[in-house]
Amino acid sequence: MENQYADAHNVQIGVVYYPEHWDPSLWEEDIQLMKQTGVRVVRLAEFAWSRMEPSPGQYTFEWLDRALDLFAKYQIRVVLCTPTNTPPRWLTELKPDILPVFANGETHHPGVRGHRCYNSESLRDYGARIITQMTTRYGDHPAVIGWQLDNEYWVIDCHCDTCNQRFREWVQEKYGTLESVNREWGTVVWSGEYSDWSQVGVPYGGSRHQNPSYLLDFARFQWDSIAGFQRDQIRIIRENCPGHWVTHNFHTYPQRLNLYQIGADLDVAAFDYYPNTDPDKQATGPYSGALSLDVTRGIKRRNFWIMEQLSGPPGCWFPIWRAPYPGFIRAFSWQAIARGADTVVHFRWRSAVAGAEQFWHGLIDQSNVPGRRFREFAELCGEVNALASKLQGTEPANEAAILFSHEHLEALRIQPQAEGFDYYENVKDYHRALTKLGIGCDVIEWTQALDGYKLVVAPSFYLLNTEVTDALERFAAAGGTVIVTSRSGVKHMNNQHVMLPLPGLLAECTGVNVEEYDPLGRATIRVVDDAGHSYLGSQWCDVLSLHGAEAILWYDEDFYQGTPAATVNEFGQGKVYYLGTHLDEACLKHLFRGIAEELRLMMVPDLPEGVQIVIRAGITGSYLFVLNLSREPHQVSLPGTYASLLYGTERGNVLSLAPYGVDILQLS
Amino acid sequence: MENQYADAHNVQIGVVYYPEHWDPSLWEEDIQLMKQTGVRVVRLAEFAWSRMEPSPGQYTFEWLDRALDLFAKYQIRVVLCTPTNTPPRWLTELKPDILPVFANGETHHPGVRGHRCYNSESLRDYGARIITQMTTRYGDHPAVIGWQLDNEYWVIDCHCDTCNQRFREWVQEKYGTLESVNREWGTVVWSGEYSDWSQVGVPYGGSRHQNPSYLLDFARFQWDSIAGFQRDQIRIIRENCPGHWVTHNFHTYPQRLNLYQIGADLDVAAFDYYPNTDPDKQATGPYSGALSLDVTRGIKRRNFWIMEQLSGPPGCWFPIWRAPYPGFIRAFSWQAIARGADTVVHFRWRSAVAGAEQFWHGLIDQSNVPGRRFREFAELCGEVNALASKLQGTEPANEAAILFSHEHLEALRIQPQAEGFDYYENVKDYHRALTKLGIGCDVIEWTQALDGYKLVVAPSFYLLNTEVTDALERFAAAGGTVIVTSRSGVKHMNNQHVMLPLPGLLAECTGVNVEEYDPLGRATIRVVDDAGHSYLGSQWCDVLSLHGAEAILWYDEDFYQGTPAATVNEFGQGKVYYLGTHLDEACLKHLFRGIAEELRLMMVPDLPEGVQIVIRAGITGSYLFVLNLSREPHQVSLPGTYASLLYGTERGNVLSLAPYGVDILQLS
Amino acid sequence: MENQYADAHNVQIGVVYYPEHWDPSLWEEDIQLMKQTGVRVVRLAEFAWSRMEPSPGQYTFEWLDRALDLFAKYQIRVVLCTPTNTPPRWLTELKPDILPVFANGETHHPGVRGHRCYNSESLRDYGARIITQMTTRYGDHPAVIGWQLDNEYWVIDCHCDTCNQRFREWVQEKYGTLESVNREWGTVVWSGEYSDWSQVGVPYGGSRHQNPSYLLDFARFQWDSIAGFQRDQIRIIRENCPGHWVTHNFHTYPQRLNLYQIGADLDVAAFDYYPNTDPDKQATGPYSGALSLDVTRGIKRRNFWIMEQLSGPPGCWFPIWRAPYPGFIRAFSWQAIARGADTVVHFRWRSAVAGAEQFWHGLIDQSNVPGRRFREFAELCGEVNALASKLQGTEPANEAAILFSHEHLEALRIQPQAEGFDYYENVKDYHRALTKLGIGCDVIEWTQALDGYKLVVAPSFYLLNTEVTDALERFAAAGGTVIVTSRSGVKHMNNQHVMLPLPGLLAECTGVNVEEYDPLGRATIRVVDDAGHSYLGSQWCDVLSLHGAEAILWYDEDFYQGTPAATVNEFGQGKVYYLGTHLDEACLKHLFRGIAEELRLMMVPDLPEGVQIVIRAGITGSYLFVLNLSREPHQVSLPGTYASLLYGTERGNVLSLAPYGVDILQLS
Repeated sequence: MENQYADAHNVQIGVVYYPEHWDPSLWEEDIQLMKQTGVRVVRLAEFAWSRMEPSPGQYTFEWLDRALDLFAKYQIRVVLCTPTNTPPRWLTELKPDILPVFANGETHHPGVRGHRCYNSESLRDYGARIITQMTTRYGDHPAVIGWQLDNEYWVIDCHCDTCNQRFREWVQEKYGTLESVNREWGTVVWSGEYSDWSQVGVPYGGSRHQNPSYLLDFARFQWDSIAGFQRDQIRIIRENCPGHWVTHNFHTYPQRLNLYQIGADLDVAAFDYYPNTDPDKQATGPYSGALSLDVTRGIKRRNFWIMEQLSGPPGCWFPIWRAPYPGFIRAFSWQAIARGADTVVHFRWRSAVAGAEQFWHGLIDQSNVPGRRFREFAELCGEVNALASKLQGTEPANEAAILFSHEHLEALRIQPQAEGFDYYENVKDYHRALTKLGIGCDVIEWTQALDGYKLVVAPSFYLLNTEVTDALERFAAAGGTVIVTSRSGVKHMNNQHVMLPLPGLLAECTGVNVEEYDPLGRATIRVVDDAGHSYLGSQWCDVLSLHGAEAILWYDEDFYQGTPAATVNEFGQGKVYYLGTHLDEACLKHLFRGIAEELRLMMVPDLPEGVQIVIRAGITGSYLFVLNLSREPHQVSLPGTYASLLYGTERGNVLSLAPYGVDILQLS
Repeated sequence: MENQYADAHNVQIGVVYYPEHWDPSLWEEDIQLMKQTGVRVVRLAEFAWSRMEPSPGQYTFEWLDRALDLFAKYQIRVVLCTPTNTPPRWLTELKPDILPVFANGETHHPGVRGHRCYNSESLRDYGARIITQMTTRYGDHPAVIGWQLDNEYWVIDCHCDTCNQRFREWVQEKYGTLESVNREWGTVVWSGEYSDWSQVGVPYGGSRHQNPSYLLDFARFQWDSIAGFQRDQIRIIRENCPGHWVTHNFHTYPQRLNLYQIGADLDVAAFDYYPNTDPDKQATGPYSGALSLDVTRGIKRRNFWIMEQLSGPPGCWFPIWRAPYPGFIRAFSWQAIARGADTVVHFRWRSAVAGAEQFWHGLIDQSNVPGRRFREFAELCGEVNALASKLQGTEPANEAAILFSHEHLEALRIQPQAEGFDYYENVKDYHRALTKLGIGCDVIEWTQALDGYKLVVAPSFYLLNTEVTDALERFAAAGGTVIVTSRSGVKHMNNQHVMLPLPGLLAECTGVNVEEYDPLGRATIRVVDDAGHSYLGSQWCDVLSLHGAEAILWYDEDFYQGTPAATVNEFGQGKVYYLGTHLDEACLKHLFRGIAEELRLMMVPDLPEGVQIVIRAGITGSYLFVLNLSREPHQVSLPGTYASLLYGTERGNVLSLAPYGVDILQLS
Repeated sequence: MENQYADAHNVQIGVVYYPEHWDPSLWEEDIQLMKQTGVRVVRLAEFAWSRMEPSPGQYTFEWLDRALDLFAKYQIRVVLCTPTNTPPRWLTELKPDILPVFANGETHHPGVRGHRCYNSESLRDYGARIITQMTTRYGDHPAVIGWQLDNEYWVIDCHCDTCNQRFREWVQEKYGTLESVNREWGTVVWSGEYSDWSQVGVPYGGSRHQNPSYLLDFARFQWDSIAGFQRDQIRIIRENCPGHWVTHNFHTYPQRLNLYQIGADLDVAAFDYYPNTDPDKQATGPYSGALSLDVTRGIKRRNFWIMEQLSGPPGCWFPIWRAPYPGFIRAFSWQAIARGADTVVHFRWRSAVAGAEQFWHGLIDQSNVPGRRFREFAELCGEVNALASKLQGTEPANEAAILFSHEHLEALRIQPQAEGFDYYENVKDYHRALTKLGIGCDVIEWTQALDGYKLVVAPSFYLLNTEVTDALERFAAAGGTVIVTSRSGVKHMNNQHVMLPLPGLLAECTGVNVEEYDPLGRATIRVVDDAGHSYLGSQWCDVLSLHGAEAILWYDEDFYQGTPAATVNEFGQGKVYYLGTHLDEACLKHLFRGIAEELRLMMVPDLPEGVQIVIRAGITGSYLFVLNLSREPHQVSLPGTYASLLYGTERGNVLSLAPYGVDILQLS
């Protein structure tokens, strides 16, 4: 792992702290306790604009100076934030063009947060001023190591006049002529042809059944808007803080923004990780969480930060979550580290006494009496600090990858295919099946190079071009195994349907044609393999004709009973599978297990429900993380005996894990 | 059947085609395949305004000339459409008064379709111009036979300034003075009296608990608005195309617009028929569909067109439907013809590659490779063409009728009576019970002449006047049988409650008084007959006192246990039944069967679930359609043996039908 | 009971009548029937503004004169209403500032009712004029005895310009400086600090996740607005009608307005009581109803009026309710009287023939033929008139009280604590458990004096100050028993979280600390007592440490299994219980029964489901009301034999009650 900012990859624990929310008399005491507990880093000031600039051009950084000096005094590092997520009231009053506008014309008034249009010139202008102040003041501060840009970007579908104008310009820039626009969007349908540029604008009213080519471009425009907004900020930081790195805290996947596009300009990716504490979510939550972490690692194909990690039950406008079970907080922090988080910053030091997030619980309650959660956190800090030097520089290294794309996600959001067909949920299903088999897997953007992988899963390559097709074919031809699924090759990149038999450009490598399809929706269908095992398909059924491929599963119901439900095609040195229906977990595990055996992938196929394993490896060695992310004790069979880094003992072939128990074993 | 436009009643199959969506190089090949398949008619251009008039007054009909000439070359007839459903962008930009306005003041922006206020002067003006161009250009074109007006009218509750003003004028015209308005609407309630005409306007905010007399008049105003909009178009067509007939494609019943009022100005009615492909809807869908077809036939009491017939799974902003089962497409086209459709136009030739309806599947997929659905369609074309001359001029002829009214539908929408009480759903229930008994029935407007019928069902004559009452009484007195149900005679036509014991004006002919009622809602109640059979009532219970009528069913629960639930009254030479609660299907079938036996109605009482029979008769003969609209094979017992028109063989007393199997037997 | 307006406390039956809705020829006949039936009072004119002032300054009271004279002629007393709930159309046209504005900027258009902003100067001005006219004209009228102000106040969250300005002034008045505002609302969170008064305004957009301190103050501002609106009206009535009392008809608890604040300026409280007629609600409805009545009695801690009592199934924009079962109407009127209603005014004399409420059924249907409901009403009138002199001056007198607060209600609405945690529903649960044990209980404002009670239940004292804490501690110290529940002592009155271990200020008297909590939401948890009985807790679990208290229940699940779920603490001469989870009904009954035995509270612990008992006592004697509010017959065991006031006989130890049977026994 190479990185020009080494301190971006320290293995350590941090906390989020809001000095501006608390009486200054509490600060030093708080920081002393952090230090004593083993906290190494804090995040500060992402919502503090009104405290740093209480009126236009009046800067009041003294409080922040003091806070930073205190952190420096106790050798705790600081990530500062650009405060643009919450423009102060004087600014939105002075420059109302900052406020976003919904599709129905209503203004997004201040009062909560995120009340800022990414394209607003006023926002960019006043934002640049405060960021310039912050970066010139703190570029050399001994405590400060990096910057978080804004907070939790969100595609807001702004319909303000600025966005309307910027979108028109974006379309002009992209297409040049109205003829191109009309052709690429297919506006002839429903008489929607543009005859003047003035007619091109944001989708007022915002209904889903607007032209899907247009809506997809409107999403891309928004991705570009956020990227542009972010680049303005990065430029200032690079100039004034050459030694600092920049990140952004992504959240709540799937996100409608393009993680890869935003991530490209960052030095390190970060994620806000709030695993669900509800016992009813125990069966799925730890697997969705694993996917979120792998997605985040895939943003830059490199280790990352957790910028907000669950520390107590969240609560806000929604009801408060269940209390985290003993061990929960620690175990999910270790899960994050296992999957490539280097620093895990817990949100937040102490629960708020004011504002909307009073029930978004921190490590310490408002009473300021540390309790069970804090004690568990302190244990975690000790463990991480003890292992930091070993884990430093290690990374998960996998031979399988899932290819993910925000293009598909957005296009399939615009035109849902079938009741229950959800692109991201399907990605979850593939990822979970692999995870339950103990097969580590990366999740990377669909256009990324595939070198080094043996298996790639390509769920619903809905939009497709020849570049990606060629890369996939090259990968397979060279001996790779590819899994293609239904709803692939359906569209051109402009979201117009191909005039080819499906799977379109992928028909050749898969060796199948989709003769027709049956959008099952909430119904299910029986499928069988040649050993007579029966499974369930759901969501969608492609009725296939084979042009070189061999069937491996057959439909066992409905009018296409007996026809192939899944196939495999020899392609060059490799194999391309086609899954015509969405297979249940048992079937996916059976399929993946066979492939893994064939490809000799590392696998622990009999993991108990809720137990996950991950290997981080690097120059210091190779470490096996075994995580019981459930309320029940479990035993895991391992191929040998290993030293436990956490407990210092040799562990036998059968590892016993308490509820939310964790162990880290030295493999080599 | 008399009709000045004979070609409006050819028995034939058509398709919807959009030449403007496809590369012109595909057109002739497409049309050749249509010809070869047996397609006799196409519908064109209902959304093509921007291609015919790309800027104000600039007309570009050359493409349409070429398309029409090609159709003429291959002797395929064309129905052209007025394109007013989708005003082009230059027009809504130039004349924003075209755009409808919702109750909350938001504009219905362009981007989808139907973005036009029926009352907009600009729409009517620019609409007249393009229609004048089209009709003068194509009035004599050899391919063109008729016109579809606009597309799928919809009551849009427009609140634009024009509508506000027009509604005020409409009220002035109807009532003359504010005193009359205040009296007829009962505005004294809640201090809503108008003291100046300026206060009269559309229902801003649009809440349901506005004055129901006012809301009903607002609906009637909208019916008049659409009728006026339509008459403007018809006038031009009549003038320029004296040899052409006009139609409109109604859709998705129940419709809030008044089908009968709109239908009065048309030469032929048309319906867009999309029977539900979901196996879960198999038990109800074919019966709702039968009702839709019978409703459409009742619009003009004459055969009709299907202007859009399901050809593949629809999909758009909603998830894609299930694939039609083998035979489904053919069977439902035959169902339409059986129930009085002469021409059935399939939607659409080929699925779109652009725009919002890419997944509204046509006969051929975007790949342009004809598949299973197309082969089934081709079979259908062959069959229909073979039988066309026999079926030409035949019509369903029934002795029973259901009396339907948009006045009741709208008034009961404004004031729902009980949870689960749904006027149209109840009409479905009566129609389905008759259909399952093999009793053919017309569905006609409640004010229509009843001559020729033996049985009329009058569900919930909620609003009532003396004219309709007198007609019903005359029918019964002359020997007819009438079925009256709860919620009849409740209101004057101004939607004010009568000051009479219910069923108000119908108390005399029914021989009952409603002493009180119990709005059951989602609950049910046991009812029994004198043979001790037990059934369920639902929705509503009238507690009756008898004034001449005899009880035939009794409540068997609640505080009115033992009192009559349904009655029959001898009235002149006939009988009037009163149903005090909504009876379940078993009970309705039992009741109708008894009545049918008494009245010697044609009936096949033991039809298997999903099998429907209909007779079309005319000078060429009398034909029995037997349709298995289900996924299971079925056998039907018939009174004799008949020649099969479809299969050319004699069929025995027991007719075996494959899933979605159809047969047509020559009765005489 | 002292009251300067004796006639406000007659025990009698009334009806609501709308002379302006009916042909004047019907009036005298109607009033004669009222007289003959035993009706003693009517309510008039709450929506009659347009009939009293059809245009600005033109007054047309002649019709009302005639109606009042007719009532005087038949010695029926009249409560008149101020008509401000429905400003006439000429007025809202002339003064559009009267119309409220929703959070999204839409105007609440006229057409229904309640279309008036309480703060509108125009409304207050024109309202004062018509009220001055009414009060000067009718101050001495022999029929008129009192006034209802407006109709069914509702917190409307108006966002009009007037409210925006008034709210700003209200904040200025309350806090003086922006520094105070920023501190008390904690605006530093999310950079929401105000730097200019112009930035302070109503919550446009209205989202729940705005600052909770601000939202609570916005609610309080609205309470003050309604109170101010009301005071303007009272001032005029006091001046012109010194002999008349004033009331308001509250409705549909829980109400977002502060009943106690509004009630403070009234002479007598009134409630609109529509018990649910649905058999499915039989198990809960009569208990919710009992609470509503007790809440109303608590508004002024004095007997009250029912201003609208159910007389038939309601129906309007919602479907019509079930018919009231025989005896239902009578029984629920007696329930109201039992719990402290003196006058019960039935809504309404005859069902409307016009307007939105045609299906809000009155005593007589639109046919004007009195039926079953009317006969039952007539029976009721006779009974009440026969007992009036005995019941006059009697009141329920209880030794237990539930302490209720609109501050908690609103604050917990702003920040829901857990799925299923509902402050008012919890109050219902405590009240129902007491009612099922036959323990009478008052429901009073939380700041009221507690003298005379032995037991007070203090559900979720979420916001707290030292005054209330001190009062509760004094009550307990002096020997009282207090029940404190989870979510108590959480907040300061400014809705900021305390920095204390919970239950904050109540930690001392309860003798417990909340170490942490688990927001169960929809889940449940087993709890056990020391006798091994098992119960269910729900919604929330506090994990407690004991500092003097003793455990009485223990959690029997989850990670805090075995720790205390409920405790009792000796405090001075009394006891303070703490309930850490929301206990099921069986557990609450067990707990309350034990406490009642210890405190020797009057109790009838084995009441059948649906049977309620209440004692009204005064100088004339003490009367036990036994009410069977169910569809099943029941028997009640009583400690002795008593004379039945209703039936004139001695009743044995076991009292048999028919469905909806009622008896009233003379205890002393």
